[in-house]
Amino acid sequence: MTDERFFPSSGPLRLTDIASHVAAELSDLRAGEMMVHGVGSLDTAKSGELSQFSDARYRSAFAKSHASVVVTSRELSGLVPFKGPLLVVALPRVAYARICDLFFPPALLLEGTHSTAQIDVTALLGEGCQIDAGVVVGPEARIGSRCHLSSNVVIGAGVVLGDDCDIGANSAIGHALIGSHVRIASNVSIGGSGFGFTPGPHGPVRMPHLGRVIIEDNVEIGGNCAIDRGADGDTVLGAGSVLDNLIQIAHNVRLGRNCVIAGQAGIAGSTVLGDYVMVGGQAAINDHLTIGTGARVAGKSGVMRDVGAGETVGGYPAVPVRQWHRQTIGLMRLAARRINGHT
Amino acid sequence: MTDERFFPSSGPLRLTDIASHVAAELSDLRAGEMMVHGVGSLDTAKSGELSQFSDARYRSAFAKSHASVVVTSRELSGLVPFKGPLLVVALPRVAYARICDLFFPPALLLEGTHSTAQIDVTALLGEGCQIDAGVVVGPEARIGSRCHLSSNVVIGAGVVLGDDCDIGANSAIGHALIGSHVRIASNVSIGGSGFGFTPGPHGPVRMPHLGRVIIEDNVEIGGNCAIDRGADGDTVLGAGSVLDNLIQIAHNVRLGRNCVIAGQAGIAGSTVLGDYVMVGGQAAINDHLTIGTGARVAGKSGVMRDVGAGETVGGYPAVPVRQWHRQTIGLMRLAARRINGHT
Amino acid sequence: MTDERFFPSSGPLRLTDIASHVAAELSDLRAGEMMVHGVGSLDTAKSGELSQFSDARYRSAFAKSHASVVVTSRELSGLVPFKGPLLVVALPRVAYARICDLFFPPALLLEGTHSTAQIDVTALLGEGCQIDAGVVVGPEARIGSRCHLSSNVVIGAGVVLGDDCDIGANSAIGHALIGSHVRIASNVSIGGSGFGFTPGPHGPVRMPHLGRVIIEDNVEIGGNCAIDRGADGDTVLGAGSVLDNLIQIAHNVRLGRNCVIAGQAGIAGSTVLGDYVMVGGQAAINDHLTIGTGARVAGKSGVMRDVGAGETVGGYPAVPVRQWHRQTIGLMRLAARRINGHT
Repeated sequence: MTDERFFPSSGPLRLTDIASHVAAELSDLRAGEMMVHGVGSLDTAKSGELSQFSDARYRSAFAKSHASVVVTSRELSGLVPFKGPLLVVALPRVAYARICDLFFPPALLLEGTHSTAQIDVTALLGEGCQIDAGVVVGPEARIGSRCHLSSNVVIGAGVVLGDDCDIGANSAIGHALIGSHVRIASNVSIGGSGFGFTPGPHGPVRMPHLGRVIIEDNVEIGGNCAIDRGADGDTVLGAGSVLDNLIQIAHNVRLGRNCVIAGQAGIAGSTVLGDYVMVGGQAAINDHLTIGTGARVAGKSGVMRDVGAGETVGGYPAVPVRQWHRQTIGLMRLAARRINGHT
Repeated sequence: MTDERFFPSSGPLRLTDIASHVAAELSDLRAGEMMVHGVGSLDTAKSGELSQFSDARYRSAFAKSHASVVVTSRELSGLVPFKGPLLVVALPRVAYARICDLFFPPALLLEGTHSTAQIDVTALLGEGCQIDAGVVVGPEARIGSRCHLSSNVVIGAGVVLGDDCDIGANSAIGHALIGSHVRIASNVSIGGSGFGFTPGPHGPVRMPHLGRVIIEDNVEIGGNCAIDRGADGDTVLGAGSVLDNLIQIAHNVRLGRNCVIAGQAGIAGSTVLGDYVMVGGQAAINDHLTIGTGARVAGKSGVMRDVGAGETVGGYPAVPVRQWHRQTIGLMRLAARRINGHT
Repeated sequence: MTDERFFPSSGPLRLTDIASHVAAELSDLRAGEMMVHGVGSLDTAKSGELSQFSDARYRSAFAKSHASVVVTSRELSGLVPFKGPLLVVALPRVAYARICDLFFPPALLLEGTHSTAQIDVTALLGEGCQIDAGVVVGPEARIGSRCHLSSNVVIGAGVVLGDDCDIGANSAIGHALIGSHVRIASNVSIGGSGFGFTPGPHGPVRMPHLGRVIIEDNVEIGGNCAIDRGADGDTVLGAGSVLDNLIQIAHNVRLGRNCVIAGQAGIAGSTVLGDYVMVGGQAAINDHLTIGTGARVAGKSGVMRDVGAGETVGGYPAVPVRQWHRQTIGLMRLAARRINGHT
């Protein structure tokens, strides 16, 4: 049950149309004409709504769900009986996401530039953009087509945005070349001068930061993140990478493709991540390190050495995850021994 | 001694009026006509000013204070002699806070909407609101009475605010239902899409976030926090809860009533806190956990398991606080042994 | 090679002019007429460009660099042969920074106040300021000469800025007295009410915060930081101190001169740092502590006790750095022992 004030629905939708949208096999063809009125989790979906069952741990919720139809996989569908029809797909979570987009398509852009927005005369806007109140676009900036700049966004001189980008309210972007289909949430700072100081005769002297921020296609950045530009060369966020809120990306960091960085993580200067790296919440990665493709960094860990491709590390300082677990158990025994042995 | 540029005083105030405002017992009734000119800590208050003595550790500062009158409790008042009159109350810190509010009442709202603010024609504003320059209020938003929206605040479509709310400059609020007497500081992001991705055939696919943020009465949120909306269902901040700066609240987190969350803490998706939970600075709490009523989480700890009601945990991974202290001592001995035993 | 869209160059510059700008000794006087076209690291500089060699670890990059001229020190210059002329100075990093400023001087201010900026009639602006679109300056504020307030900056009532300050887009500043040559990046919150609550009969009661934020000359503050004002007395950032992004500075914290605080670090209420203290990324320092002059706090550590002048600490809880390293080694052995000894 979604709140119509925030998510106007395009439903009800016919089940057969939903099935064809995600190329699902419908377990009971007689159900094709059923009208589906909305979506919800196994727990919250009501009669007439659609849900997903994508993790065997939720099998009892699946069995008890009031949903009228459930998206699931071949394997999961046989675990417990379900009273209604199923939509069977290879990747139920992905299919569910697409069905939700069908019910709640992103709001159509209100094409036009608000009268209070300030677009420099030398800037270029693509067609079909929505530029909200208080937006500022600097000289020589290039904004692609169908971009949405929310209220009070500030785009600095020379910044390039591709097509279909969505920038959240009160974000500030400078010194950046940004691809297409990039989503940036609110209060994000992009392109600030990196934190590089060297001791001078009268206190710290700021090192020059003459690089840029390069954000490739399909990147998503959460609220209140800070992404600094490079000192010499660029800071790079590879295509498809996703960042949660309040993340620090320092100067000259390079993320590969499809990296996933959870909230409040921080990556220090010049560290390079391969593709598909996953970094847990509040993790820190030291500067000048290399984190291999497919590596995983546990939440809250502190990485002080290179991490090999496919490796999983945790702890502070971070070590291979099994070793970390042994350390944790060792610590618990150490604490227990002090009691039993009175040492 | 406060700076009149920032805190215009309504003083001097008569001591008997102060005493009656907080229902205090005045230790020396002859002092009732004394005029009190301001407030300050035991260290900084000058002659003619009022201070508080609420912690026995500060007894020597109490004895030496230049304050002319001190708010304290019955128990503390007898610890050391004080030269002047006392205001005796049950909760001296609470009474002191109320006296400060008497000297420095919140600025009166300048009722009206600034000419540069953009209020959608379908939005409703209650009476007595102060809407500052550059504010944007979206379609169908409902703003209660006597709210203050500071400069460049952005309120999204459909958002509801109760009465007497104060929203700080450059904050962005969407997909939220907010109660009364809520204070939100500057550069806060509320209602962003949560961080939920599932592996797809071409990289991470964003999971739908069709929920809301529910903020109950009397909640306070510090600067630069990020509070995501729920995926299915809502993110909830219970009545009276207070959040410091730079805090991450992920999708579907639920805080009970009167929780206290210190700076830079992060709570991952779907974790539920009971009432009166206290979370220290930079602490992290994993997703899908339950933290019982009255539990305490030490600063910087990493909680990876449920925490029972009233329990205090610390460390990374967090364990009961006594065990954590033993671990810490064990670690120190381990380090010392390596020296003495040359191992 | 810098991007002219973001960094318009004043080059090419004559080598002899560069040398005199930084009082360097030119190793080959015949090269004085060489025209230098830009700057870059040893790896990225091209023929015709200038680089720096300031760390012996990069000696092979130095030997192989395509740069036409390199700034270095007397000691480093002799390590390996270099094909071209050298600029020899005492502090090559500082000299390189100054040469970069020569090539890429900060943009000249566009003097004037944008028509959409709202400057209270009782506020004063110094001469030569650049006030961008959407800026709000409150009553009785005092802005020095040659300040740049970027778009949508909000300056509260009574705030004082010195000369030559640069405030980034969407930052909000209140209750603050700020010196000269201060740089504040975007989405920064300064002067919010500190996080001080006391248990009251109906939930947490906010303690009064009647102090200010004092920011001395030459301070730099990165993006999305939150600096609270004092409760009683002031929060102080000493002259020349530099803060990275996403840092939390709580009420009544006092930093000495020339402190260096890395990203996502947090300093809790009333803690006092001496001069030249260095705090690593994501480090946390508890409230009411004293950190001596020249102390260093390792990244991600959690400081729970005072730290002496010149001391280096790390770990959680933080201990002297050598002890922390022994703890780390001890932990690793503890984990290894469990495997070998099957315990």
